[in-house]
Amino acid sequence: MATLSKRPIGIFDSGVGGLTVLKEVTKVLPREHVIYFGDTARVPYGNKSRQSILRFSTENILFLLKKKVKLVVMACNTSTSIALDYLKNTFSVPLVGVIEPAVERALSVSKQKRVGVIGTTSTVQSRVYERSLVEKDAQAKVYSKACPLFVPFVEEGITSGPIVQKVIEMYLKDFKGTIDTLILGCTHYPLLKKVITTYLRGVYLIDSASEVALNTKALLKKYNLLNQETRVRKEFYVTDEPANFSKLAQLFLGKPIKNPKVVNV
Amino acid sequence: MATLSKRPIGIFDSGVGGLTVLKEVTKVLPREHVIYFGDTARVPYGNKSRQSILRFSTENILFLLKKKVKLVVMACNTSTSIALDYLKNTFSVPLVGVIEPAVERALSVSKQKRVGVIGTTSTVQSRVYERSLVEKDAQAKVYSKACPLFVPFVEEGITSGPIVQKVIEMYLKDFKGTIDTLILGCTHYPLLKKVITTYLRGVYLIDSASEVALNTKALLKKYNLLNQETRVRKEFYVTDEPANFSKLAQLFLGKPIKNPKVVNV
Repeated sequence: MATLSKRPIGIFDSGVGGLTVLKEVTKVLPREHVIYFGDTARVPYGNKSRQSILRFSTENILFLLKKKVKLVVMACNTSTSIALDYLKNTFSVPLVGVIEPAVERALSVSKQKRVGVIGTTSTVQSRVYERSLVEKDAQAKVYSKACPLFVPFVEEGITSGPIVQKVIEMYLKDFKGTIDTLILGCTHYPLLKKVITTYLRGVYLIDSASEVALNTKALLKKYNLLNQETRVRKEFYVTDEPANFSKLAQLFLGKPIKNPKVVNV
Repeated sequence: MATLSKRPIGIFDSGVGGLTVLKEVTKVLPREHVIYFGDTARVPYGNKSRQSILRFSTENILFLLKKKVKLVVMACNTSTSIALDYLKNTFSVPLVGVIEPAVERALSVSKQKRVGVIGTTSTVQSRVYERSLVEKDAQAKVYSKACPLFVPFVEEGITSGPIVQKVIEMYLKDFKGTIDTLILGCTHYPLLKKVITTYLRGVYLIDSASEVALNTKALLKKYNLLNQETRVRKEFYVTDEPANFSKLAQLFLGKPIKNPKVVNV
């Protein structure tokens, strides 16, 4: 398995949000090569149909397989919600989604088992979080809310101030006094952690990125695929011209990404 | 030219916004067949690159040509800003954009020739409105502002109330007392006319839809392509599954669109 273990980890997202996952993966697995793919020409996925999300996710994985990845992290809640089961049946490459890890963490920290879930319209409509939470703990009470304006606000760099506070109140007011744990079911939402925490004081926020990274490590270990490179490489691919991606990367990673490659999938 | 004139008018947009144009076209040209194409799988265009917008717009026109349209209305400000000149050089079918008609109307109603332009990031960055306004009237002073949150608000159906008022204030405060005319440079913005008018009292708002329809009529007349059907047909094509399109159509047209066809371009 030596040569197989030297292959990169593939991470894909509809756009830039998955960089929050990439950040944790490179922290937990610093000796792995990583390929990041952002489908920036078709972003966002969150308000598109099941059929389109299945097709886009399949094409994204096919692209990463051509790059000979040993494992794929689906760093997109919408893709994971809609497509993970289908893709697990289609591809033999190990797949890590972002939902299971968040669900397990939420149930382990929630005392009253009253869990809120926020995400895109497609994610919330899929009810995947709800099903998974109740499947693992029949006592769990789940409260879901689609927050479609959060992604545009994050992408405009508006993550604090009176307007975003109003938007947060609009979406989250029913959660006040109802939940003790909130799953941030979209990779953009960690950038709103501060305002959400201020609004929902005392509620424990779950951001799946670090759990996903630990999950990825466990899976690589299980399949004997861990790498031990000392000089690792990171490659970035996008489907739209990269100017906007590079600008947003600064928001998500705190540093720019130089020259991601543009590809057509 | 008899058979040619019987062909439909093609209208395309990145998604649903172009329905504001369709509405006016069918009002001004009630005896024409119309085909509407919304690229809902790749919507929005407004924050994507020049290269992607050129490619998407080309593919959309090729689709309409296969449907044997006699004229194409580009009911999308982003496409018109970026791609109109290129497409006019590429295709022989008559093309109507949404910018020229709005510019002419703005200059005809503005007394002080102080004109504001709002649109998506790509539209504003292209500076096409500015160039066109100054070309036609060297005295014109143009003030542009990208308003990337307006489309998500409209698509969420939030077109009134305190939050959208705050967003309007954030984007438009510099226009107060500065302009006498404002071009709504995006087909979604007519749905915000009421709140914008309240905020910018006394400013004349230009919504290009009716001008585009008159322009289309003039062009058909010029080429001797006017039709006189008594039973006209309207066809709708989208690239994503239509549930969301149909829901949004209700917002834009005030009535649902039944069973648009899903196609891949």
